[in-house]
Amino acid sequence: MNHFVIYDIEDDKLRTKIFETCKDYGLRHAQYSMFFGELNHNRREEIFLKFKKLIGRKAARLVIVPVCDKDFRLVKSLNTYDEPGEEDA
Amino acid sequence: MNHFVIYDIEDDKLRTKIFETCKDYGLRHAQYSMFFGELNHNRREEIFLKFKKLIGRKAARLVIVPVCDKDFRLVKSLNTYDEPGEEDA
Repeated sequence: MNHFVIYDIEDDKLRTKIFETCKDYGLRHAQYSMFFGELNHNRREEIFLKFKKLIGRKAARLVIVPVCDKDFRLVKSLNTYDEPGEEDA
Repeated sequence: MNHFVIYDIEDDKLRTKIFETCKDYGLRHAQYSMFFGELNHNRREEIFLKFKKLIGRKAARLVIVPVCDKDFRLVKSLNTYDEPGEEDA
């Protein structure tokens, strides 16, 4: 199932760790603080626990949003940048 | 239907306009560049056209993600900040 991972993290070190974890799970960096990609139930739970452990009590907001195929067909997007968002963390 | 609006906009003036438009549509500011709330089909199309007009050719990434109730129950979120994210744009 497709998922969006969206996060609000000021600390550079922590944000990089979250960024690397998303990459490790094969997610695509679609916006500065948003990843997108396929996760099954187990991997969603697993990556969430990893995020939880990484974040601990540090300041952060993070959400994992599952999007079924039906909803995914209704997604509306705009992208006026050239490259697809693959900047650094 | 619930929707997430997620954007990547460097220009402060444009980001503020997008921020205000989301507020005008009754969406809740859940993360620095993410809003969340109820939109029906027409208002999704309407707000998307407004975003498109505001953004024009300026540098921006924006996505509107519909999330049905079934998927919404699977959303996982972390928030270690005190306040719910109601900072400025």
